[in-house]
Amino acid sequence: MTEAPTIVEIREAAERIKPYVHRTPVLTSSALDRMSGARLHFKCENFQKAGAFKARGATNAVFSLSDEEAARGVATHSSGNYAAALALAARWRGIAAHVVMPENAPEVKRRAVAGYGATIYLCEPTLVAREAALAELVARTGAIFLHSYNDYRVIAGQGTAALELCEDMPDLDVILAPVGGGGLISGTALAVRGISPGTRVIAAEPAGADDAFRSLQAGRIIPSVAPRTIADGLLTSLGDLTFPIIRDYVAQIVTVSETEIIAAMRHIWERMKIIVEPSAAVPLAAALSGRVDLAGQRVGIILSGGNVDLDRLHWRGESPV
Amino acid sequence: MTEAPTIVEIREAAERIKPYVHRTPVLTSSALDRMSGARLHFKCENFQKAGAFKARGATNAVFSLSDEEAARGVATHSSGNYAAALALAARWRGIAAHVVMPENAPEVKRRAVAGYGATIYLCEPTLVAREAALAELVARTGAIFLHSYNDYRVIAGQGTAALELCEDMPDLDVILAPVGGGGLISGTALAVRGISPGTRVIAAEPAGADDAFRSLQAGRIIPSVAPRTIADGLLTSLGDLTFPIIRDYVAQIVTVSETEIIAAMRHIWERMKIIVEPSAAVPLAAALSGRVDLAGQRVGIILSGGNVDLDRLHWRGESPV
Repeated sequence: MTEAPTIVEIREAAERIKPYVHRTPVLTSSALDRMSGARLHFKCENFQKAGAFKARGATNAVFSLSDEEAARGVATHSSGNYAAALALAARWRGIAAHVVMPENAPEVKRRAVAGYGATIYLCEPTLVAREAALAELVARTGAIFLHSYNDYRVIAGQGTAALELCEDMPDLDVILAPVGGGGLISGTALAVRGISPGTRVIAAEPAGADDAFRSLQAGRIIPSVAPRTIADGLLTSLGDLTFPIIRDYVAQIVTVSETEIIAAMRHIWERMKIIVEPSAAVPLAAALSGRVDLAGQRVGIILSGGNVDLDRLHWRGESPV
Repeated sequence: MTEAPTIVEIREAAERIKPYVHRTPVLTSSALDRMSGARLHFKCENFQKAGAFKARGATNAVFSLSDEEAARGVATHSSGNYAAALALAARWRGIAAHVVMPENAPEVKRRAVAGYGATIYLCEPTLVAREAALAELVARTGAIFLHSYNDYRVIAGQGTAALELCEDMPDLDVILAPVGGGGLISGTALAVRGISPGTRVIAAEPAGADDAFRSLQAGRIIPSVAPRTIADGLLTSLGDLTFPIIRDYVAQIVTVSETEIIAAMRHIWERMKIIVEPSAAVPLAAALSGRVDLAGQRVGIILSGGNVDLDRLHWRGESPV
């Protein structure tokens, strides 16, 4: 794919990944409707294979490879959900996966990636070190590099979540999704443009990692430097493929504070009884912030993932988890 | 109802409560299937109204009252999920609810009960104090006492969860449910006996609160004295209505350790991405304990509730919830 995917490629991606990934449910919550003043429809990618929407893009990319390409194996660098997603997709296709991970990646993430059969290469936790380690292993193994978001095949795969959401819930006024590197929000924007052009797509971003917001203001990619947020899936910079899609097709970027993210995550745990990771709570935080008018509207929210490191959770008094 | 409910009364209960409660989903998990060696089907009462199966029994009891009875209001004592469920059911019927709660009940539970419009009477945290406070308020207000489990209307209501599970998943070999006072397990046993008599019903109980296990061994009700378990929904003694049903229709009671309960709860949070309270994890703990042979079997598990006190949860380092 040399141009941004259209609804045609996103539908093809949906067919391609269908045998492997879940069609995730859309949940509602009367309590959160009351709090927001809107009718919220949550697309639960926290229930997705490997615990996040990333399985969609990784699977589409891996199964888009020719047999000759696939035989070389795939490679990426990632500290988070994409590493596990790519490892799982490679296992489904029966090919090798090589994953560069920073040595400070949570143990639970490393276990997941290793559990799916990928080879892990640990490196220092800097982008420079990650890219150097990746370049070395690609040169050595000949594996195909599949970037976690700056790749049209990945973007088309991520767009299938919004495609399903629009199929299940036609006539949404707004869809909210988080923005980190921009794979999910750009896939969402392209899918919505094709299937439900009257629906506005709004990105939600932590104020402590607001490089996408500032990039749109500046009209060029502003790199994410020293981001500070609990939403650890949203630390990365936009890519040269995701930026123009966001610029052209995302109506607005809303930034939210750490306090708002934490409160939104708690509301989801407490009211919906489902586990979402901090990054996944960012769109609800935006919906509850009052900084976007959703009164009485039908709103789709993509809950991007549910991979929380429970090793870090403790109960006062006793320790049940 | 003067005799134990049959499938007829349980079906009537299902019709009666249908406009108010959720038909909860049945979820599966390939990871937990691998761990257990069985095919597990989780009936998600953590998604139920007021966060637990208790809404079923309370709603059936409240809507079984004649208009004359209902006009007097309803009353109970409860530290937990039943208090909120009865308050909510009374609000649906538009009648008063009086709830005696121990003064050490979690703030979040008190907020829920008050939020549903019930009047709360705080008392010392002993059964004697609770029963005395209840007797006083019933005498003063004329409200109808609805016991949280030792009441056939409540038992019939709780049986509707298993009724739905058997409708959605015919041919289950086994259904596992937790046992505290016995409302859920006895309703489950009666429903299964009517709709799927080939299915074994097995109760799961914390070893630290194993009064039901000892009651069955002794052939009479052994009161729960100083129970010690994190499963705070399972502290109560069997009642004279629930005990004979369990004795006659429950195949087995399996006890599990605190470590097993905590591990099972963590597996559900981590693998299924849903929030369940410790009591709800007790049946999975039994399934994973090896103390009941489930190899290759189709197993139903009732996840009884999802009301965790998030005020007690902390993250190492930061505090996201």
